[in-house]
Amino acid sequence: MENLRNRAVQLYRNIQNEICDALEELEPKQKFLVDNWDREDLTGASGGGGETRILRNGEVFEQAGVNFSEVHGHLPSEMSFKLTGKKEEQPFYATGVSLVIHPHSPRVPTSHANFRYLEVGEYSWFGGGADLTPYSLNLEDSSHFHQELKKACDNVSPAFYPKFKKECDEYFFIKHRNETRGVGGIFFDYLGKEENDKLDVYYDFSKSCGHSFVKAFLPIVKNRKDESWTEREKEFQLLRRGRYVEFNLVYDRGTHFGLHTNGRTESILMSIPPIAKWQYENDLASTDSEKKLQEILRQPIDWAGKV
Amino acid sequence: MENLRNRAVQLYRNIQNEICDALEELEPKQKFLVDNWDREDLTGASGGGGETRILRNGEVFEQAGVNFSEVHGHLPSEMSFKLTGKKEEQPFYATGVSLVIHPHSPRVPTSHANFRYLEVGEYSWFGGGADLTPYSLNLEDSSHFHQELKKACDNVSPAFYPKFKKECDEYFFIKHRNETRGVGGIFFDYLGKEENDKLDVYYDFSKSCGHSFVKAFLPIVKNRKDESWTEREKEFQLLRRGRYVEFNLVYDRGTHFGLHTNGRTESILMSIPPIAKWQYENDLASTDSEKKLQEILRQPIDWAGKV
Repeated sequence: MENLRNRAVQLYRNIQNEICDALEELEPKQKFLVDNWDREDLTGASGGGGETRILRNGEVFEQAGVNFSEVHGHLPSEMSFKLTGKKEEQPFYATGVSLVIHPHSPRVPTSHANFRYLEVGEYSWFGGGADLTPYSLNLEDSSHFHQELKKACDNVSPAFYPKFKKECDEYFFIKHRNETRGVGGIFFDYLGKEENDKLDVYYDFSKSCGHSFVKAFLPIVKNRKDESWTEREKEFQLLRRGRYVEFNLVYDRGTHFGLHTNGRTESILMSIPPIAKWQYENDLASTDSEKKLQEILRQPIDWAGKV
Repeated sequence: MENLRNRAVQLYRNIQNEICDALEELEPKQKFLVDNWDREDLTGASGGGGETRILRNGEVFEQAGVNFSEVHGHLPSEMSFKLTGKKEEQPFYATGVSLVIHPHSPRVPTSHANFRYLEVGEYSWFGGGADLTPYSLNLEDSSHFHQELKKACDNVSPAFYPKFKKECDEYFFIKHRNETRGVGGIFFDYLGKEENDKLDVYYDFSKSCGHSFVKAFLPIVKNRKDESWTEREKEFQLLRRGRYVEFNLVYDRGTHFGLHTNGRTESILMSIPPIAKWQYENDLASTDSEKKLQEILRQPIDWAGKV
């Protein structure tokens, strides 16, 4: 697996560079701040590390975090059981890139992506995905995002997009709110875990999806960033960000994996927006377009079929 | 157990009234809004209900939620296993009062309390507690709060305060931040579960603690509410509220119980502050008093011994 590890590390470092470069191009002044960090394993031994890059208080981006990591060590038995069905502690290795972008403007969606390669005991697999969380009703943005991801999937197999689009809608579902976090994208996990001979195909898939992110997300930012918006639109964004926080802290598998394996808290919780609001009422929508957006969050749409 | 259920319901309704009355006395204009609600059990059958009271945008309180509930139904197997060690679905009954108070001023601490009586299958027990989350360094407030809780404990047994003070510090620990949520208070759970003959004693204990809340918290509000504060103090409050959100969504047992038993989401997440902030850096403190406050969150203090 040594070779696959190296290729994955190189891939995820490249994706990190590519995405950071593209985001910085939209920021006249702010640059990414770079934090290199080492991880201590639960045993106290060295457990790898990573490179966290964060851009804050830009003109476009309130916060954009792009994190690369390569970590290894011992997986606690509970997490080991969740991932492999084996209750004993097991050695693990994980490398990946993960990013969350929170723009200032409520007209520009939040986006998240994560691409990772894991080994636990005898198992190896790829996981990840990319998804979009708009705060205003611009159906063409969601269609564009999905169509680019579909192209990236189709490059490897036409079976992938429909399958992983559906998994994304299921994964980013906030059960206690009966709605999805956003308009989805693709989500996949455990690829190759039961079919080791296909790990090379899934490496190609991870690569194709990873490199599609800039094409899927950046044009939306460019189109929307100079639009003006109202105070109510900002308020709605902050309330919907509250739901974003709820999903990430209550349900997100990556967040829980990180927090339960002595991960670097700052890098894990970089996904949380810098500011979020909550209101007592379950229904956040007050305008017609807010209501339409929320309907979409309750009834996922076949975006790639739409123009 | 019918009789104990009735007494518990009456007790928790009384506590709800007492606390709401005391909080309204400090608000010149705002009153509690009252929401009566019914709960549908996971099976679709009627599953009890409750009365949520919420006061918002007051002069003193940004949000104060005081919730009474009496619910019953079938406990999903995972939750059943967590609470009793039995994997099969079991009938459950729960009644309680829970409250979270988020004042506007960073000089006035947030406070939470919860008192509850549960039955799952053949087991019955009391649980609950009260704790304080200050955002500014007023050691005498924390001492007062703890001393009142100690009196309430001592009324029933001198063994209770030291034990449940310690359990509180352990329970409200945010592992991934290596700090407690606040300065603690008391926390207890499963009282009477293995000693049914003592349920009456624990009822008295629940009553003594429940009625102590007004004496423990309200004098602090009265003393601090008219103090002026700086913008930085407000910022620090919002950042510490972010940690409050992290604790509640990642670790809190009551929140997870509610979200996983088809509880009423609005009433459960009333604990979340109306607005919260996050910053990338793990260390939030910038002033000396912020640093001292954070030290206290890393090294719990024997407050009841202090003056």
